[in-house]
Amino acid sequence: MTTSEIPDIIVGRLPRYLRTLELMHDQGIATTSSKDLGDQLGISAAQIRKDLSQFGGFGKQGTGYNIPYLIQQLRAILNVDRVWDMAVIGAGDLGHALARYQGFLKRGFRVAMVFDNNPEKIGKKIGDIIIQDSSEMIPAIRGAGIKIAMLTVPGKAAQDVTDDLVKAGIRAILSYAPIVLTVPDDVHVQNIDPVTRLQRMTYYLD
Amino acid sequence: MTTSEIPDIIVGRLPRYLRTLELMHDQGIATTSSKDLGDQLGISAAQIRKDLSQFGGFGKQGTGYNIPYLIQQLRAILNVDRVWDMAVIGAGDLGHALARYQGFLKRGFRVAMVFDNNPEKIGKKIGDIIIQDSSEMIPAIRGAGIKIAMLTVPGKAAQDVTDDLVKAGIRAILSYAPIVLTVPDDVHVQNIDPVTRLQRMTYYLD
Repeated sequence: MTTSEIPDIIVGRLPRYLRTLELMHDQGIATTSSKDLGDQLGISAAQIRKDLSQFGGFGKQGTGYNIPYLIQQLRAILNVDRVWDMAVIGAGDLGHALARYQGFLKRGFRVAMVFDNNPEKIGKKIGDIIIQDSSEMIPAIRGAGIKIAMLTVPGKAAQDVTDDLVKAGIRAILSYAPIVLTVPDDVHVQNIDPVTRLQRMTYYLD
Repeated sequence: MTTSEIPDIIVGRLPRYLRTLELMHDQGIATTSSKDLGDQLGISAAQIRKDLSQFGGFGKQGTGYNIPYLIQQLRAILNVDRVWDMAVIGAGDLGHALARYQGFLKRGFRVAMVFDNNPEKIGKKIGDIIIQDSSEMIPAIRGAGIKIAMLTVPGKAAQDVTDDLVKAGIRAILSYAPIVLTVPDDVHVQNIDPVTRLQRMTYYLD
């Protein structure tokens, strides 16, 4: 199976399929249909069938999708059939929340390091993780081979920190900073933004 | 202009267009094209033109879109040409981060109330906001006419709290809880999930 030519827009929908399937699985549901999945996600059944057919298709006409099997396949495609270590940059409220979040580990991610430049925070612990000095970030991340960072620093510092993360070998950045980050082509950035999600709902409010 | 028949999937893209336009505007850019917008968002130029044409279209062939005008129009369509008060439910790390987040106000949202059921937190302040007792949540939200809530309580409490929010008159819930919430048809829920965004990037990592 060659996945290198899958359009990014389809790749972007796969984690949402996986998430919904995992929630169904937690509820004890064993099979689903493209229509069921689509209804939960606001995506057409035809689109879901078309997306999954890019990877060979996983359902049978009339019997639907086997949820545990489809979860396994999507995890393999998305490279989350393993645990990825991550670094959290910025130990403010949001950095603390991310470092403590229990939902990462069962879905393939683990916060391994937290960095801040505030001397009052450096050396303190969040759970089992000691907050490290940002000035040691590049060798620490590089030494541990960490490829994923979550960025919670203020907007004005975000680009400089990002440049350092690239030097440290980071390849994927989940950014909470309200700016567009400039990165090399082989580094991926996802901006996560509560306001965008709120605005999707206010459309429907009077 | 009738917007009641716009498919939800298009509505879901409009806040992303608005967000990108606002960031361009902050950078001093005055006009853009469907191609520019699409490149930034990973959406085809044709899709963007088609989406915006649902509202009458805002661009001229050859001159592109006037960014301040398009921002104004999208804000009106999404009902964010005003300020919406919100309640944060759960005053843990994430609740604190949301209550302190400076990015809401300029984009149409204001955290007006925070609730928790922990006696050690009730009465303490986050910035100017006093954490209120969850047992007073229904009358407090109803009395203030608040329609939007951000839910940061643990998964096992999330459905019960959601039922109370519906009783309080809440119509839109941004949920950080890792469960599917059951709500009446006229209440909107958006689940916000960092893992889904991380998985979109791991696809590209070796």
